[in-house]
Amino acid sequence: MHLLLIAHGSRQESSNDEIRSLTERLRQFETPFSGIDCAFLEIAEPSITQGLQRLIANNMTEIVVVPYFLSAGRHVLVDIPHQIEQVRLQAPHVVIRIAPYLGAAEQIDQLLMHQAMSILKNV
Amino acid sequence: MHLLLIAHGSRQESSNDEIRSLTERLRQFETPFSGIDCAFLEIAEPSITQGLQRLIANNMTEIVVVPYFLSAGRHVLVDIPHQIEQVRLQAPHVVIRIAPYLGAAEQIDQLLMHQAMSILKNV
Repeated sequence: MHLLLIAHGSRQESSNDEIRSLTERLRQFETPFSGIDCAFLEIAEPSITQGLQRLIANNMTEIVVVPYFLSAGRHVLVDIPHQIEQVRLQAPHVVIRIAPYLGAAEQIDQLLMHQAMSILKNV
Repeated sequence: MHLLLIAHGSRQESSNDEIRSLTERLRQFETPFSGIDCAFLEIAEPSITQGLQRLIANNMTEIVVVPYFLSAGRHVLVDIPHQIEQVRLQAPHVVIRIAPYLGAAEQIDQLLMHQAMSILKNV
């Protein structure tokens, strides 16, 4: 079972590199995933389709996709599921599951408040 | 001291409402902030400028801004600081501090993995 992290993709290559570093760090976790990679909705590469096709070419038959997005906007609700659906149609033997997007996590609230308060310590 | 949460803004009004609900939830926390509001970089209202000007019109002189963004892309690095700088120039007596963006939080890694693994429980 493979994990594919999906981020938006940016024209700022340093921002895409942040995602690649995050992917590297996630690989250090003990998880049920045999491998972890990232793909991008727009602009950067690999695209979602490329990312999934690579995994399928490497004989992965179970893939979990997790959207690194904060809001259930068009990207999360429409664009990502649509691109995944296209790959599903081409590779119906592969099980692709979409995990809840990051912003749906309850702990986001505390984390955001933690960031807001961290600036006060630097005064 | 007031907290202004800044989100991207979406054409999907439900996505903007997610941010407003988040803001409501943050108000329940015990914090040093006398009030918490949200503003949007694009599309939705209030804009960053409107959000800050409202606070300043209400005699707030200390404002912390926290970007509800995952990556240090153009929005976090350029657009948000630029809009804030414009307000600073108009209201030099107001102290506006920019807290680290959400994606800079170390715990994001665990949270994302938590989301990825949550789908496995539903199989």
